[in-house]
Amino acid sequence: MQKMWEGRFSENSSELLESFNASIDFDKALYKQDIFGSIAHANMLGTTGILTKEQSEAIANGLRSVLKEIEDGKFEFKTQDEDIHMSVEKRLSDIIGKELGGKLHTARSRNDQVALDFRLFVRQETINISKLVLNLIKTLKDIALTSKDILMPGFTHLQHAQPVSLSFHMLAYAFMFKRDYERLLSSYERNDLSPLGSCALAGTPHQIDRQIVANELGFKGVTQNAMDSVSDRDFALEILFNISLIFMHTSRLCEELILWSSSEFRYITISDKFSTGSSIMPQKKNPDVAELIRGKTGRVYGNLIGLLTVMKSLPLAYNKDMQEDKEGVFDSVETAKTSLVILEQMLKTTKFNKDFMLKACKTGHLSATDLADYLVKEHKIPFREAHFITGRCVKLAEDNGKDISELNLDELKSIDERIENRALEVLKLLNSKEARKSIGGTSNQSVDIQLDLIEEFIKANS
Amino acid sequence: MQKMWEGRFSENSSELLESFNASIDFDKALYKQDIFGSIAHANMLGTTGILTKEQSEAIANGLRSVLKEIEDGKFEFKTQDEDIHMSVEKRLSDIIGKELGGKLHTARSRNDQVALDFRLFVRQETINISKLVLNLIKTLKDIALTSKDILMPGFTHLQHAQPVSLSFHMLAYAFMFKRDYERLLSSYERNDLSPLGSCALAGTPHQIDRQIVANELGFKGVTQNAMDSVSDRDFALEILFNISLIFMHTSRLCEELILWSSSEFRYITISDKFSTGSSIMPQKKNPDVAELIRGKTGRVYGNLIGLLTVMKSLPLAYNKDMQEDKEGVFDSVETAKTSLVILEQMLKTTKFNKDFMLKACKTGHLSATDLADYLVKEHKIPFREAHFITGRCVKLAEDNGKDISELNLDELKSIDERIENRALEVLKLLNSKEARKSIGGTSNQSVDIQLDLIEEFIKANS
Amino acid sequence: MQKMWEGRFSENSSELLESFNASIDFDKALYKQDIFGSIAHANMLGTTGILTKEQSEAIANGLRSVLKEIEDGKFEFKTQDEDIHMSVEKRLSDIIGKELGGKLHTARSRNDQVALDFRLFVRQETINISKLVLNLIKTLKDIALTSKDILMPGFTHLQHAQPVSLSFHMLAYAFMFKRDYERLLSSYERNDLSPLGSCALAGTPHQIDRQIVANELGFKGVTQNAMDSVSDRDFALEILFNISLIFMHTSRLCEELILWSSSEFRYITISDKFSTGSSIMPQKKNPDVAELIRGKTGRVYGNLIGLLTVMKSLPLAYNKDMQEDKEGVFDSVETAKTSLVILEQMLKTTKFNKDFMLKACKTGHLSATDLADYLVKEHKIPFREAHFITGRCVKLAEDNGKDISELNLDELKSIDERIENRALEVLKLLNSKEARKSIGGTSNQSVDIQLDLIEEFIKANS
Amino acid sequence: MQKMWEGRFSENSSELLESFNASIDFDKALYKQDIFGSIAHANMLGTTGILTKEQSEAIANGLRSVLKEIEDGKFEFKTQDEDIHMSVEKRLSDIIGKELGGKLHTARSRNDQVALDFRLFVRQETINISKLVLNLIKTLKDIALTSKDILMPGFTHLQHAQPVSLSFHMLAYAFMFKRDYERLLSSYERNDLSPLGSCALAGTPHQIDRQIVANELGFKGVTQNAMDSVSDRDFALEILFNISLIFMHTSRLCEELILWSSSEFRYITISDKFSTGSSIMPQKKNPDVAELIRGKTGRVYGNLIGLLTVMKSLPLAYNKDMQEDKEGVFDSVETAKTSLVILEQMLKTTKFNKDFMLKACKTGHLSATDLADYLVKEHKIPFREAHFITGRCVKLAEDNGKDISELNLDELKSIDERIENRALEVLKLLNSKEARKSIGGTSNQSVDIQLDLIEEFIKANS
Repeated sequence: MQKMWEGRFSENSSELLESFNASIDFDKALYKQDIFGSIAHANMLGTTGILTKEQSEAIANGLRSVLKEIEDGKFEFKTQDEDIHMSVEKRLSDIIGKELGGKLHTARSRNDQVALDFRLFVRQETINISKLVLNLIKTLKDIALTSKDILMPGFTHLQHAQPVSLSFHMLAYAFMFKRDYERLLSSYERNDLSPLGSCALAGTPHQIDRQIVANELGFKGVTQNAMDSVSDRDFALEILFNISLIFMHTSRLCEELILWSSSEFRYITISDKFSTGSSIMPQKKNPDVAELIRGKTGRVYGNLIGLLTVMKSLPLAYNKDMQEDKEGVFDSVETAKTSLVILEQMLKTTKFNKDFMLKACKTGHLSATDLADYLVKEHKIPFREAHFITGRCVKLAEDNGKDISELNLDELKSIDERIENRALEVLKLLNSKEARKSIGGTSNQSVDIQLDLIEEFIKANS
Repeated sequence: MQKMWEGRFSENSSELLESFNASIDFDKALYKQDIFGSIAHANMLGTTGILTKEQSEAIANGLRSVLKEIEDGKFEFKTQDEDIHMSVEKRLSDIIGKELGGKLHTARSRNDQVALDFRLFVRQETINISKLVLNLIKTLKDIALTSKDILMPGFTHLQHAQPVSLSFHMLAYAFMFKRDYERLLSSYERNDLSPLGSCALAGTPHQIDRQIVANELGFKGVTQNAMDSVSDRDFALEILFNISLIFMHTSRLCEELILWSSSEFRYITISDKFSTGSSIMPQKKNPDVAELIRGKTGRVYGNLIGLLTVMKSLPLAYNKDMQEDKEGVFDSVETAKTSLVILEQMLKTTKFNKDFMLKACKTGHLSATDLADYLVKEHKIPFREAHFITGRCVKLAEDNGKDISELNLDELKSIDERIENRALEVLKLLNSKEARKSIGGTSNQSVDIQLDLIEEFIKANS
Repeated sequence: MQKMWEGRFSENSSELLESFNASIDFDKALYKQDIFGSIAHANMLGTTGILTKEQSEAIANGLRSVLKEIEDGKFEFKTQDEDIHMSVEKRLSDIIGKELGGKLHTARSRNDQVALDFRLFVRQETINISKLVLNLIKTLKDIALTSKDILMPGFTHLQHAQPVSLSFHMLAYAFMFKRDYERLLSSYERNDLSPLGSCALAGTPHQIDRQIVANELGFKGVTQNAMDSVSDRDFALEILFNISLIFMHTSRLCEELILWSSSEFRYITISDKFSTGSSIMPQKKNPDVAELIRGKTGRVYGNLIGLLTVMKSLPLAYNKDMQEDKEGVFDSVETAKTSLVILEQMLKTTKFNKDFMLKACKTGHLSATDLADYLVKEHKIPFREAHFITGRCVKLAEDNGKDISELNLDELKSIDERIENRALEVLKLLNSKEARKSIGGTSNQSVDIQLDLIEEFIKANS
Repeated sequence: MQKMWEGRFSENSSELLESFNASIDFDKALYKQDIFGSIAHANMLGTTGILTKEQSEAIANGLRSVLKEIEDGKFEFKTQDEDIHMSVEKRLSDIIGKELGGKLHTARSRNDQVALDFRLFVRQETINISKLVLNLIKTLKDIALTSKDILMPGFTHLQHAQPVSLSFHMLAYAFMFKRDYERLLSSYERNDLSPLGSCALAGTPHQIDRQIVANELGFKGVTQNAMDSVSDRDFALEILFNISLIFMHTSRLCEELILWSSSEFRYITISDKFSTGSSIMPQKKNPDVAELIRGKTGRVYGNLIGLLTVMKSLPLAYNKDMQEDKEGVFDSVETAKTSLVILEQMLKTTKFNKDFMLKACKTGHLSATDLADYLVKEHKIPFREAHFITGRCVKLAEDNGKDISELNLDELKSIDERIENRALEVLKLLNSKEARKSIGGTSNQSVDIQLDLIEEFIKANS
């Protein structure tokens, strides 16, 4: 095969180089972006008179034929065609003739073409992922709506700390994923610019109109410096980072789901649909999906550091190293999409065992802080002293094999005379939860506000 | 010393644990944030009647005394005080008495306190760094303003590609750093929320007003779920990522400065102020500063992956692992600030050797694309064929030891009869640069638009 | 101050550059390595006649005075002295006179000097860390020696799988850390070579004897290519990787300690010495040390990726970027040493609650696999079928709220007629553990072999 | 399809889970390892009498049929079969019957089976990669053998420092790759142990003989703790790290090849076979292969940090997260193999332009250090003073537009009276190179020793 750029070379490319150099194996995923980008370019060449209307229309029609061939599975991708751009253009030339086909590349270079295709891809996937994040938030919200009265231990240091509602706990994740959603949108806005027309690195002498291309492809505007346009991969790094934060959050959620489905916790029962068994231990019911999502955090972090490494110290403008930009992004995007779907469905079918959660609340003196707060509020004891008194009550309870909420008034008074009847109320678990009415707190009143905010957020973005 | 939480423990902490556990060595950097946060908290406790006005004022005054002691260098930070929060509170209690001092921690926990301090720090440094980025953009713009007619080779693959102006090249960096600035601002907006009042993880039964604290500290609003508020470190990861992209960009700029100051390039002369010599090779003038900044990309990437690793799979809410969140952020922030200042000053004093740049333009057939474009535009030859013809002209030039711009008409015609006189004009370097009038191109007309955009951007953000 | 390399420069270094460029703030940690290296170099210059014996002895004595000053805290490190090498040499010249002091740098450059210092440091710390790893193995072995009969659930997917002994579980970690030890030793061996005499990058015309220096400093030999010697940082990357694996292992152990000390597990009680309380929740007893060690995995991974990033794409030989090689290594080394000591001491004082462990064994049908194995062994039922039968027994047990070991013969026979009396024995937990007599298994017989291997290993390396 | 572990489950797996959970898409790459491992296991079951000889032989023959089907492309891998282990076993059962086929999994679990397969893979690829590294060393040595008299500038800080031979420079890389080779071998040795027989995590009650399996598969021995054996992925991390260092080294070499093939350097001409052109700039000849290899450093680092992240904080023993261990290793291994082959072939066909290298030596006062050394050696001037004098000579040369080697005696004496005729000799470039006769130096005498060492190393490992 004759390479497009072969005029100058006196030796043939070795086959080894061909396959090493080729990106067609993975960048064929960009066929749609490439063809739509080329159609927009052809249309612009027609509108501006660089080509005749007939020529530009013939090219656009030819490109649509290529698209159909690909979508019908009739298109053969070959290593010799090097990349998706060459593959499409060669087939176009087969269909509409080499002379006309060759005109498509007027006022364009592979450098701005690949930047365009990749930006179109990242832009679309940013939207796709943000929708899945929104779905996950909805499911968390749905669980939260019906679990305001399910008591569970709130943990710090994986130790029981204070009683909270399951609703409140689920909302913590809803707010995390809300930030993820906002980051995706912010990246979308910042990078919604067409690079086409930047050509190799310096623009073109042809009288092109970049805004026409941008409009046709739905971009807000065009990039403003050609050299930067072909060497910029910030948009790719942003999606890699945004996905990394999504997985940081899902890894925390999945860690909890794994803990909660252990024999020791039993807070939840993951649906059989989302569990697997063991080849040797028939009794096992493994939270594989949660484990896998947690594990996939590794590849997602790896893809981020991978592209950061590629881009480090690259002189301007385009360097071939940048061909390494795509596979990591494709992988992180695919991983995010599958994981978000399955996580959402798993959550939906997970059974929350409120009895085990409630039972757990009775371990760990969860309402101890409430006693301290009571001492501060009603007896004006400085917090630090109240804290110390409460510590001694806990010790007394421990020594007698009780929870602090099970101490009677005499026992409490043996630690500090000032403690009165009202303290017994305060030490009740449900009262403890309901007392926390501050903004962001775990009382139903506070949780209702959080639910409203999340519902408004969902509505505003649906 | 008696630890605040010692009531329950029957053994003393070992000294080993004390120093392992303590964060005072590094979190003392947050003394200002801690004290201002505590003053705002005390004021709110007074305003809401949780404390009396007199009490809250006495606490606030006491805190201001502690601040003064620290700023006067009269404050001794001790490992036994564990962290900045305890250090400040203990000294406060010394000054205003234990009973009153102990009241400050009412309706607050170390979990939301440290979240507040760290957010205040990150917020301030986001602004500080964005200002330095803006300064760098200004300097790049100043260079660009006076170098529109300095011709230099535009590179791809580190090969000469097309002639560009130094102005255009500098503007490529200006647009990169503009995105960095926008990312910083976007992170600022997203995270401009006060977590105080979230307490340990579930809010508080005290009748606090979180908005008062937020207002006093200049936050746009308050966080909305207490559990998320104490376990969220997205804001820290965002600044680590934003700084990573800044260093990705500076590493590219520094790589070019290093290349350009080599004997082979000689495009620039870095001021003696920003160079160093060798202990053994007296003639060396090393671009150390550019090398160091390039090298510091390593620690900045490392800090990002470090915190991503810490946060992976942490169950909610606060875990002690999160104490590891600060040093990396402090280091990246400090590195960014110093590097941005010195880079900007180095650029300002760098001499651009336009003669060497111009000479370099005469190597590499920089205007070859212009010949191809001419064949397309004026002879309606399909681009791919024009590309092939030009390739053969380059080969002819190479075989005769010439640049393509030095071929005469006969030589050109020997490749393709259709080539005419006008081609000689097109092949001139300056004409090549000036021909690229598309948006984002390297012609002066296009560069002027870019300069205007950057100037507007600077004005709008100053 | 006059910089050593200032002859050529017409402008003074700016102060900004001075502090940016200086490494003295952190490389002063190498003072011992620097001085011992210089003494060895001076001795060699004397032995080979490049200096007179008197000169070399005067220099060595001068260096010993500098060492004493530093160790007595009488030495002032100044930013203007740039790095430890200059600091020491300047002070030496103060003491023995500039002319003689200036002779020390004969046949040496900062490039090979810093390579030597850093190698000496890494070599020593490799030994230090390996000793601490060995200590940790000893402690794990000590626990294992006395816990062969403590039954606990073996987990996969954090689900109960099969009963094992605590001894066996502890030995799993002993074998991990054994590999860590072996990796450290292997790195030590590979990098035990002196680079001194490589000079700037090309060797020296002086008639030096590199082997003499190597011998005096206890190196096995000398590096063999000067350019590689000054640009090689593999030894630093190896220790960063080795420490990363150590922390990967400790993070797993600490994760388990955190799980085990939760209210839900209660398998262990961490000593008060190695726990902390909460400022707001008096009842909390947090496994801070385990959390902190787990969290420090982040910085250790970050330091590895940091130096990998620094070294990526650096042309030969020395580049200033490489000044960024030290802080990460210092930090990882320090982190490893402190964490290993405290982890070992925490383990030593941890109480293992065998009652809770045993109780946990009764949940999860831990001996189910034994029933499957019984069906295979005694009834020649294919494993896959046996597995299926056992699965149904588990389901029956679950449906009746029992553990599989609590089913009676009739119940078992209702699933499969072939099951006989002997199956009841097989299902007993202790029998299950003791049945696993294969090499590496959890039976006491197998564990004894493992203990012997670890004891031999410890003895061989003590 | 009925899953092997389905007995207990009351709902069917969703399709979504099936594909999310399945690893067959990538772990089919392990078909050979899986089948050979299973044959060895079957043979052992026969030898030890757990199965009859006939049974074990029938199984082994069945497995060989499956192998042939796969290698003949007649085997269909299906998502429902989940992983390579199930795929092979199901097909085996089709061929030899379900009852006999089911017996293969006796005394084995997927946990030890996958550990075995993966170790066999990593072990083989460690050897494969080490051979390619050795090949690369050979090619470097071949270039070095014929380039001892090709002078080129030795660089530090990308500034000309001292004249070296191309041979010497190539040998620097030979010694780097020698360390890579040694690391691979060291990892091979450390991990050459069979885990089979560890079963799920605790060994097996069957009377197996693990050593027989190990022998048949060529392992040095067996792993010693079953729980560690199924949760250990150190061997995978080691190969990822070893490949990372290889790419750190190749990225440095490729950076130099890219620099050297620029218009500014022209030190080399990369063969057309290993270059590509531009779609828009016909004159370009791009060092794509070197750029791609440099860029692939990103994915290789990413894969390392990816698996480190996966393994962080995983409790023992096997967790599903560990299914994420393979793709990164497969990718790094494939990347290493292809890149090493193509790099070696590119080097072989690269033309070194000695004229341009020599010309470059005349810029940068490369022999300045020699003047300093001369002053020290022959006039006993302290090095620091000699350094200062030389600096002034360089400045004089620069002011007169000369190289220091072009100064005449009068000019030199104008700086320092003591300089004599002999200095002119010393300043000659070739003399400078030849003077460096220290071990590891750039003189031919020193280079010959290095060549001998490398040749011995190659011979010893061939």
